[in-house]
Amino acid sequence: MIGEVPNVEAGQGFSTRRLAHEAGVHRPLQAGICGTKKIGAESIVVSGGYKDDEDYGNVIVYTGHGGQDGAGNQVSNQSLEDSGNAALVTSYLEGLPVRVLRGYQGDTPYAPATGYRYDGLYRVTGYGSKLGIDGFLIWQFRLEAYDDTPTPQTTQQPELPGAPAEPESTSVPGNEAPERITSTVQRIVRSSAVKRQVKAWHDNRCQVCNVRIEVPGGSYSEGAHIRALGSPHNGPDTTGNVLCLCPNCHVMLDAGAIVIEDDLTVIRGGQPAGTLRTHPQHAIDLECVRHHRERWRQ
Amino acid sequence: MIGEVPNVEAGQGFSTRRLAHEAGVHRPLQAGICGTKKIGAESIVVSGGYKDDEDYGNVIVYTGHGGQDGAGNQVSNQSLEDSGNAALVTSYLEGLPVRVLRGYQGDTPYAPATGYRYDGLYRVTGYGSKLGIDGFLIWQFRLEAYDDTPTPQTTQQPELPGAPAEPESTSVPGNEAPERITSTVQRIVRSSAVKRQVKAWHDNRCQVCNVRIEVPGGSYSEGAHIRALGSPHNGPDTTGNVLCLCPNCHVMLDAGAIVIEDDLTVIRGGQPAGTLRTHPQHAIDLECVRHHRERWRQ
Repeated sequence: MIGEVPNVEAGQGFSTRRLAHEAGVHRPLQAGICGTKKIGAESIVVSGGYKDDEDYGNVIVYTGHGGQDGAGNQVSNQSLEDSGNAALVTSYLEGLPVRVLRGYQGDTPYAPATGYRYDGLYRVTGYGSKLGIDGFLIWQFRLEAYDDTPTPQTTQQPELPGAPAEPESTSVPGNEAPERITSTVQRIVRSSAVKRQVKAWHDNRCQVCNVRIEVPGGSYSEGAHIRALGSPHNGPDTTGNVLCLCPNCHVMLDAGAIVIEDDLTVIRGGQPAGTLRTHPQHAIDLECVRHHRERWRQ
Repeated sequence: MIGEVPNVEAGQGFSTRRLAHEAGVHRPLQAGICGTKKIGAESIVVSGGYKDDEDYGNVIVYTGHGGQDGAGNQVSNQSLEDSGNAALVTSYLEGLPVRVLRGYQGDTPYAPATGYRYDGLYRVTGYGSKLGIDGFLIWQFRLEAYDDTPTPQTTQQPELPGAPAEPESTSVPGNEAPERITSTVQRIVRSSAVKRQVKAWHDNRCQVCNVRIEVPGGSYSEGAHIRALGSPHNGPDTTGNVLCLCPNCHVMLDAGAIVIEDDLTVIRGGQPAGTLRTHPQHAIDLECVRHHRERWRQ
């Protein structure tokens, strides 16, 4: 349910939400966010429902769900407890792709002239709250198109001379301009199904140092391959070769500052530093542990 | 000196190393690695000098420098103290691009038929040691072409039926295959000049928790924007808006688990948690601190 839907390509139009629902692009008929805190956001609809939204084509600033009256005015605060908002936080923390559907109601050059258009996969690269135009707390999510997501079509509407460009960040002479290529947040990369399984077993608690990083709306950890994928290591992408680690221990594992003995003793900086925490369903592949250890003999 | 060289495009040939030197693509006339521990590796030459090398075109397993006799046999251990090897470790830890020049001597289908060919920018996505074919310790670096680096040309030599593909990682039924698109290591992204300045002032020590991550051959930290770049935050890319953080504190800053008061008190999980460490040359931009704090009111 996360990611591309079979037989639907970016740019494809749907005259109604029901047709988008039937194609599996966006399953709810009313809600703008499809997803749950547990699995993340499958898809969102960008259709002008929130006046604080911003749409720059490949970048969308999307206002979360909640707090509106029937006329579309914000009348109370939004919350990350809201299921749709919590889903978008999970998409951020897990680096998951979100399908974007744009509707004709949006007053942006990227809105389709009629109906709805599937515009491909975006990722959530940041979130935060602010006081919205109506004076209530809103949560906003920055979504960026993947490099291989096509640029959405622009409808040249008379009242809009052209597609807006995302405002430049303030630039100070002598300093390097922000590199567009690296986008705004790059730390978080997509967790594979194997990594998500390991992280779920350990509930995002680091198997080496026991840290669990708590953030508004969730917690964060990383799946780390013990024996690296690809040449020259060619490790398997299996749960036995993946650890649930905090980012700091992940860096240290990847660069050999942490190695693991066959009895699961953790060696950090050459010194024993406790025992790798395990889980009944998580059997560590000792061949991978050995291969990693061999790689860091000096 | 790091990155692309003016007026030279990927695929361009040089009949001699002196011409590549004069073009600025690879400055040394003999050494295979150009760079230092301080600035990272500018460029490498892949020319069959080490029998443990592997070349898959977009992926290169490159053996470090040292320990050879005049005949190209490994006769002693390699070390990360070697300046060229240390430079490649810095390129890994800083996420810096490395120019790749392939020479005719390489016995791979990607070697040019004659002379040398500049093949564009690669990044170091991992490193480690092993016992090489000759029985001595060698250090190896995995380099991957950037997505926009052209695929190198293949020379169809009679004795080589075709370009080798990188071996698939072991796959287990029911598990997701490794995603090629995400490559093997994605945690480390390029540090901009602004970020590198801040990290240098703090010598890679986290300004929040004082952790300094030590790994074989160097240390690691991340430059973190306080007020995020891009919409809706539009923070400046200046040293006053960047902190030197460990990866864990970076995740927490980006997701609002850490905010900073005007007097530089750190609030972590809603509780005071010490004071942000500063440096005489590093003036924190309090407008950015306030903007970040406002973003995480709940």
